[in-house]
Amino acid sequence: MAETKKIAVIAGDGIGPEVVAEAEKVLQKVGEVFGYSFETEHALFGGIAIDEKGTPLPAETLEVCKRADAVLLGAVGGPKWDNNSKELRPETGLLGIRKELGLFSNLRPAVVFDCLKDASTLKPEVLEGTDLMVVRELTGGIYFGEKFRRETEYGEEAVDTCAYNVTEVERIARQAFDIAMKRRKKLASVDKANVLETSRLWRETVIRVSADYPEVELEHVLVDNCAMQLLRRPSSFDVIVTENMFGDILSDEAAMLTGSIGMLASASLGEGSYGLYEPVHGSAPDIAGQGLANPIATILSTALMLRISFGYGEAADAIERAVAEVLDAGHRTSDIAAGRVEALSTKQMGELILKAIRK
Amino acid sequence: MAETKKIAVIAGDGIGPEVVAEAEKVLQKVGEVFGYSFETEHALFGGIAIDEKGTPLPAETLEVCKRADAVLLGAVGGPKWDNNSKELRPETGLLGIRKELGLFSNLRPAVVFDCLKDASTLKPEVLEGTDLMVVRELTGGIYFGEKFRRETEYGEEAVDTCAYNVTEVERIARQAFDIAMKRRKKLASVDKANVLETSRLWRETVIRVSADYPEVELEHVLVDNCAMQLLRRPSSFDVIVTENMFGDILSDEAAMLTGSIGMLASASLGEGSYGLYEPVHGSAPDIAGQGLANPIATILSTALMLRISFGYGEAADAIERAVAEVLDAGHRTSDIAAGRVEALSTKQMGELILKAIRK
Ligand SMILES: [Mg+2]
Ligand SMILES: [Mg+2]
Repeated sequence: MAETKKIAVIAGDGIGPEVVAEAEKVLQKVGEVFGYSFETEHALFGGIAIDEKGTPLPAETLEVCKRADAVLLGAVGGPKWDNNSKELRPETGLLGIRKELGLFSNLRPAVVFDCLKDASTLKPEVLEGTDLMVVRELTGGIYFGEKFRRETEYGEEAVDTCAYNVTEVERIARQAFDIAMKRRKKLASVDKANVLETSRLWRETVIRVSADYPEVELEHVLVDNCAMQLLRRPSSFDVIVTENMFGDILSDEAAMLTGSIGMLASASLGEGSYGLYEPVHGSAPDIAGQGLANPIATILSTALMLRISFGYGEAADAIERAVAEVLDAGHRTSDIAAGRVEALSTKQMGELILKAIRK
Repeated sequence: MAETKKIAVIAGDGIGPEVVAEAEKVLQKVGEVFGYSFETEHALFGGIAIDEKGTPLPAETLEVCKRADAVLLGAVGGPKWDNNSKELRPETGLLGIRKELGLFSNLRPAVVFDCLKDASTLKPEVLEGTDLMVVRELTGGIYFGEKFRRETEYGEEAVDTCAYNVTEVERIARQAFDIAMKRRKKLASVDKANVLETSRLWRETVIRVSADYPEVELEHVLVDNCAMQLLRRPSSFDVIVTENMFGDILSDEAAMLTGSIGMLASASLGEGSYGLYEPVHGSAPDIAGQGLANPIATILSTALMLRISFGYGEAADAIERAVAEVLDAGHRTSDIAAGRVEALSTKQMGELILKAIRK
């Protein structure tokens, strides 16, 4: 029996509890099938934590996360808290937890399931074989730089500052190269080096780091060109690494390419193997509590956790295979049913995937 | 006879001279058909100006542009000058001419020609009816802000500064609203107001200006969401207005949506009716001098000039109708032939469009 892995489980708001419940069953099943031992501890976070504890990120939640080996998060937020002051907003908790846990990168795989490729607005033949991963720097850049206003002769002026230092770029570059080494060994580094100083530092640093990864084929792509190439040749990308804001834009574009955002997993990583895993979709308050949510993105986030944080690649493969098998058999939740087949409930979909998990 | 309009013609590099020659014939024809009088004056710019005058933007070229009512530009740049020092690069001439002529906005229509919609990687039914215009602020934001490096405890750090003042935002907002009033009266203002101070100033200003345009339906779209929505519902957009860098990214994404970048026109405008018009495509050095280039983007840029700078809407319509008619009849240059029909030369395509121009 392998050592017990501790997982902090944060169900959160909206459909969060429903989709996380299915992912937890999958964890349990994988443990039985592969002889792994998982221990889960639940904690309050987001809107529900605001309601019950008066803050989106209670100290005890942070404690639970810190003593775990990884965190599984459902979704946070909803209209109930949208008009709260900044420190009482669920999203503020998200920024806080990333910072407190030292998570500096966000990984967004954009995978097209063969049987779902019709869901995209792109032509199936263009999309065919698309399987890319956007690695986005999460703690630096213009989102976190100094911001202020000042009076000028042209009226009020607003200023945002974008800064990156070599250490920040190097750690995300190394992580992206490491990920590329475990995939198809292709890395596209996205910047705007023809105009921005931060991008020139970014490119210099990525080139320097690339010397340690001679097997990885590196290309530099300007951000505006990348926004085009994602449409033109999505399947040609393997790993894309970029700074915070470019990653925010391009990972959403890449997600939309797939046509099924309810299927997409994500990971936020720091140094070492620690990580926070969550579906890309939000808390979907409109369908919360109705058992309609698609649990697949959360289940696939669990697979990512097993592969990245625990090194249980075989078990992660088994989950991904199970999901593909269930989809190939024609089973759909309402978000991906497209009115063509009867939609399953969250629990029914979870149950089918559970049954399909085998060595 | 209407007053004579002076047009500065800058053929530039690569395929520039070939495509501009066809656009000039179109101007001539439109003059005859509609009774307008155009006077063209040619000037050197870009790589050819570097070769012949030692600078990408000679003083006499600027003079020619300044005494004209509008500028028609082919394309600039090529591998020959790529390794030049910054002040001897064709692109530096472009920045210089925009600045000297006070051009603060860039208009990029992204139109899908019905008969070319198969050229896109998007599904024809998604693309159907797409006819949008990206209005990009051209003189402010992070591309022009202060840039520097400094030493920190984390190694070298690079900094870029993004600034916008109320005057800059207001003038582009008014221009975008004016354009929307002449189109379908819908404006999407794109920002990242949930994170950036410049975006909050942008949004406040756009909202304030919107009071003067009660007929225009205004929506605010976050930049990452816009990158998604362009893929999901391209035909729902009319005018999109945004700051420099977001516009750089989104206008390229929108261009790629159409699938035929060789067809896209652009305009750079300042205060009043003055403007510089050019195709979106580049100088295409690989096919330069071979008579293979598609002149349609330059011809459509001329139509934009007639409509925007001269107010000759009827003549502009006639050009656009002629282009559509020639395409509908199945004629193609090699870039849009897709191997299905015999490709025409630049001159043949220009000739057919010329013949199709009528009142
Ligand atoms: Mg985003
Ligand atoms: Mg661009």
